[in-house]
Amino acid sequence: MDNIALIGMASIVVGGLTTAIGSIGPALGEGRALSQALSALAQQPDEANTITRVLFVGMALVESTAIYCFVITLILLFANPFWNYVVEQGAGG
Amino acid sequence: MDNIALIGMASIVVGGLTTAIGSIGPALGEGRALSQALSALAQQPDEANTITRVLFVGMALVESTAIYCFVITLILLFANPFWNYVVEQGAGG
Amino acid sequence: MDNIALIGMASIVVGGLTTAIGSIGPALGEGRALSQALSALAQQPDEANTITRVLFVGMALVESTAIYCFVITLILLFANPFWNYVVEQGAGG
Amino acid sequence: MDNIALIGMASIVVGGLTTAIGSIGPALGEGRALSQALSALAQQPDEANTITRVLFVGMALVESTAIYCFVITLILLFANPFWNYVVEQGAGG
Amino acid sequence: MDNIALIGMASIVVGGLTTAIGSIGPALGEGRALSQALSALAQQPDEANTITRVLFVGMALVESTAIYCFVITLILLFANPFWNYVVEQGAGG
Amino acid sequence: MDNIALIGMASIVVGGLTTAIGSIGPALGEGRALSQALSALAQQPDEANTITRVLFVGMALVESTAIYCFVITLILLFANPFWNYVVEQGAGG
Amino acid sequence: MDNIALIGMASIVVGGLTTAIGSIGPALGEGRALSQALSALAQQPDEANTITRVLFVGMALVESTAIYCFVITLILLFANPFWNYVVEQGAGG
Amino acid sequence: MDNIALIGMASIVVGGLTTAIGSIGPALGEGRALSQALSALAQQPDEANTITRVLFVGMALVESTAIYCFVITLILLFANPFWNYVVEQGAGG
Amino acid sequence: MDNIALIGMASIVVGGLTTAIGSIGPALGEGRALSQALSALAQQPDEANTITRVLFVGMALVESTAIYCFVITLILLFANPFWNYVVEQGAGG
Amino acid sequence: MDNIALIGMASIVVGGLTTAIGSIGPALGEGRALSQALSALAQQPDEANTITRVLFVGMALVESTAIYCFVITLILLFANPFWNYVVEQGAGG
Amino acid sequence: MDNIALIGMASIVVGGLTTAIGSIGPALGEGRALSQALSALAQQPDEANTITRVLFVGMALVESTAIYCFVITLILLFANPFWNYVVEQGAGG
Amino acid sequence: MDNIALIGMASIVVGGLTTAIGSIGPALGEGRALSQALSALAQQPDEANTITRVLFVGMALVESTAIYCFVITLILLFANPFWNYVVEQGAGG
Amino acid sequence: MDNIALIGMASIVVGGLTTAIGSIGPALGEGRALSQALSALAQQPDEANTITRVLFVGMALVESTAIYCFVITLILLFANPFWNYVVEQGAGG
Amino acid sequence: MDNIALIGMASIVVGGLTTAIGSIGPALGEGRALSQALSALAQQPDEANTITRVLFVGMALVESTAIYCFVITLILLFANPFWNYVVEQGAGG
Repeated sequence: MDNIALIGMASIVVGGLTTAIGSIGPALGEGRALSQALSALAQQPDEANTITRVLFVGMALVESTAIYCFVITLILLFANPFWNYVVEQGAGG
Repeated sequence: MDNIALIGMASIVVGGLTTAIGSIGPALGEGRALSQALSALAQQPDEANTITRVLFVGMALVESTAIYCFVITLILLFANPFWNYVVEQGAGG
Repeated sequence: MDNIALIGMASIVVGGLTTAIGSIGPALGEGRALSQALSALAQQPDEANTITRVLFVGMALVESTAIYCFVITLILLFANPFWNYVVEQGAGG
Repeated sequence: MDNIALIGMASIVVGGLTTAIGSIGPALGEGRALSQALSALAQQPDEANTITRVLFVGMALVESTAIYCFVITLILLFANPFWNYVVEQGAGG
Repeated sequence: MDNIALIGMASIVVGGLTTAIGSIGPALGEGRALSQALSALAQQPDEANTITRVLFVGMALVESTAIYCFVITLILLFANPFWNYVVEQGAGG
Repeated sequence: MDNIALIGMASIVVGGLTTAIGSIGPALGEGRALSQALSALAQQPDEANTITRVLFVGMALVESTAIYCFVITLILLFANPFWNYVVEQGAGG
Repeated sequence: MDNIALIGMASIVVGGLTTAIGSIGPALGEGRALSQALSALAQQPDEANTITRVLFVGMALVESTAIYCFVITLILLFANPFWNYVVEQGAGG
Repeated sequence: MDNIALIGMASIVVGGLTTAIGSIGPALGEGRALSQALSALAQQPDEANTITRVLFVGMALVESTAIYCFVITLILLFANPFWNYVVEQGAGG
Repeated sequence: MDNIALIGMASIVVGGLTTAIGSIGPALGEGRALSQALSALAQQPDEANTITRVLFVGMALVESTAIYCFVITLILLFANPFWNYVVEQGAGG
Repeated sequence: MDNIALIGMASIVVGGLTTAIGSIGPALGEGRALSQALSALAQQPDEANTITRVLFVGMALVESTAIYCFVITLILLFANPFWNYVVEQGAGG
Repeated sequence: MDNIALIGMASIVVGGLTTAIGSIGPALGEGRALSQALSALAQQPDEANTITRVLFVGMALVESTAIYCFVITLILLFANPFWNYVVEQGAGG
Repeated sequence: MDNIALIGMASIVVGGLTTAIGSIGPALGEGRALSQALSALAQQPDEANTITRVLFVGMALVESTAIYCFVITLILLFANPFWNYVVEQGAGG
Repeated sequence: MDNIALIGMASIVVGGLTTAIGSIGPALGEGRALSQALSALAQQPDEANTITRVLFVGMALVESTAIYCFVITLILLFANPFWNYVVEQGAGG
Repeated sequence: MDNIALIGMASIVVGGLTTAIGSIGPALGEGRALSQALSALAQQPDEANTITRVLFVGMALVESTAIYCFVITLILLFANPFWNYVVEQGAGG
């Protein structure tokens, strides 16, 4: 039953770390963009519409890399093909 | 009963670290955005409404990456499919 | 009785580190925001009300990531489902 | 059945880390570009069309490196030639 | 009697490091805020009251993350539920 | 059958990491160039054609280093001479 | 008598490192604040009283995080509950 | 047949990492040069010819260090003298 | 006699490193403050007395963190309670 | 035949890493110089000849450190005195 | 005679590293202060006396942290209480 | 014959890394100097002779540290006294 | 004869690293001071005497930390009390 | 003959790394000083003599730390007292 423990541990460890590491880049990148947007708003209040529109479309694009990581984590936790295989093996073995 | 210890340890370790690492990026990013917002307020007090609105919507977006991590931690601690499996195995074994 | 030691050690180690690591980001982020707020106050003393209000609402948001970590630590120390399980096992075994 | 565990663990670990590490660079790079775009918009609102067009074409190019990583992860999880080989071996062995 | 040594060592190590690591962020953040406050005082001496009030309220908030760490350390050293458990076990065993 | 596991693991691990590490440099470099291009557009809108042409030719050159890494990963996963050799050995052995 | 060595070593190692690591943050933070205070004095010599008062109150607050570490070290060296326990055990055993 | 696995693994690992690490420096260096070129174009559009010529000759020189790494990787994967030797040994042994 | 070696080694290692690590922060912090003091002297020579007084009082405060480390080192080398205990044990054993 | 594997692995690993690490410094250094050259061209187009001549002579000098690394790699792969020795030993043994 | 080797090695290793690590901070801090002093001299040559006096008193204070490390090293090499103990033990044993 | 492998491996590993690490500092230092030289040329074209002369003499001095490393590598590969000794031992043994 | 090897290896390793690490800080610190001195000379050529005098006295002070490291290395190589002891033991044993 | 291998390996490894690490600091420090010298020349061409004299005297001082490392390496390779001792032992044994 060793395989189950190994595959399970790897899935847990990597599942958590993927989301954790994957949140660093987007959070910093979005923080930077947001910070510049506020500065731009203060400089050019008349362009508030264009600025906030570009800001949120761009942040969605940056957020997408965090979402890739979140998706991978969910796959590893709930639809992990390796886990399914070793569980079946264990059940049928 | 070894599998239970291994899966349990991995869940504890990764659960904690996911939230811990996941708090670094958002905290720094939000700090930066907040800091710029205050500077923008000082420069352009008449736009206080637009600035604070954009600030809090944007911070919510940045916070979302911290929340992904928190959700993963709670799943690992309280709804961990791997743990459930090994406990059932242990009970029925 | 090995499982108890392993699960216990993991809980202690991760419990402490989660709070420790989780305090770095918020402390730096809040320090930055606070520092900018003071500079904004010096520039625009008439907006002191708006600035301090935005500052403390924003800092609460940043602080929230530190609180997630603190909550996880308390769960790991005092309401740890894995520990409870292995203790019950040890008692009934 | 050891090979299955080893190949499986390696696939899980690397699959997750590839996407996680691969999200750091693009997120920071896009955040930087987006932040500069907002500043450019505030400076030259009349060029909003050219700026946003160049911004999104460029961000797509930067995003492409994140997508390479995501593709590699999906290949490792769902179309992994090494896993297929060892599973066949295990089945036929 | 091995469990006692393991749980004890983990508590000591993590207890110390939690406070040590937890002092880095707040110290730097407070240093930064304090440094900006002095600069703001030099710029706008008439606002000394507002500035110092905001400064000390803000620093208390930043300090709070250091205090979370200190509390966790004291819990680990003097009210450690895992240690209590293994000591009881050792005594009754 | 040990060689198969070792060569397979090494291929998976290195395949993933090559693309992951290889995406950091280009993403940051392209983000920087793109960001400067937007700033140049805002300064000199009349040169938009020259600027965007140089930008995309240059980004293609930077992207080339990411593509080298992607190619190496695909070779390691699908045309790996070492894997082919050990599989043949295993089949004929 | 192994437990004594393990607990003793852990106490020594962590005792020393806690103070050592705990001195980095405050020293840098205080250095920064002090440096800014001198600059503020040169700019606004008439506010020397306010500046030095705020400086020393603030530095005391920053110093407090170093003192938490020092206290933990002294507890670990001279009032260590884990050490007391294992010494009693060793004496009575 | 152990030598084959060892030499093979080393070749795979180093082959991949050489290209991966070797892409960081050139990508950052080229990104910087490209970014400055765009800024120079905006400043001095009349010198566009000289600037782009120097830019692309210089980038070729920087790219050369990435190409050294790529060449080494291809040699390690497809014309590796150490692998050839151990394969011959294995075949003739 | 193993305990003596272990406790002795730990004391030596930590004793040295505590002072070594503990000298980095204060040295950098004091260097920064000193450097700013010289700059302030050049700007405002008439305030030389106030500046040097604040400088040396502040540096004493920063130095105090280095002295905590030095004290801990001397305690570990010459008044180490753990060493005394194991030596007594060894003598009486 | 163990020596052959050890010497071979060491040669492969170091051969690859030498070129990889050796490409970081020159690529960054050349990128910096190139970037400054473009800025100088934009400032002083009349000196284009002197600037490009100094640029390329200087870049050749910087490139030389990358070439040292490349030469060492080729020596390790194709004219390695240690490998030759152990192969002869193996052949004659 | 094992204890002698262990205590001896630890003393050598830590003795050297303490001085080595302890030289980094002071050297950088003094370099910074010295560099600012020269700049202050160029700005305000009439204050050369005050500046150099403050510079050398301050540098002596910074140097003191390097001297703590040097003293610890000499104690470890020539007046090491742990070494003396184990040598006596070895001689009398 | 073990000594031969150990000494050989150490020589290969260190030989390569010495040149690789030794190329980082000089490449960055020369790149910086070169970059400043180009900027100086653009500012003061009439001093081109003095500037390029000082540049190349200085770069030769910086290059010398890379050459020390290269020389050490060649000594380790082709005139290694330790290797010669163990080979003689092996031959005569 | 094991002790001789252990003590010898430790002396060699630490001897070399002490000088190597100890050269980083002073070299950077002196480079910074020297660089500022040249800038000061260009600003205030009439103070060349004072500036160069302060520069060389200060650099001697910074150099002193490198010399501490060099002295420790020479002591470890040629007047090492631990080595002398184990050699005597070996000779008399 | 084990001691010979251990001492030999340590000498090779440390010999190489000492020069390699020791070249980083001086190369960066000299590059910085050289770069500032060129800038000073462009600002104040009439002081070329003083500037280049101070530059080369200062660089010689910085270079001295690299030379300490080179000397230590040569001592370790060609006049190593530990190696001489173990070779004599091996010869006479």
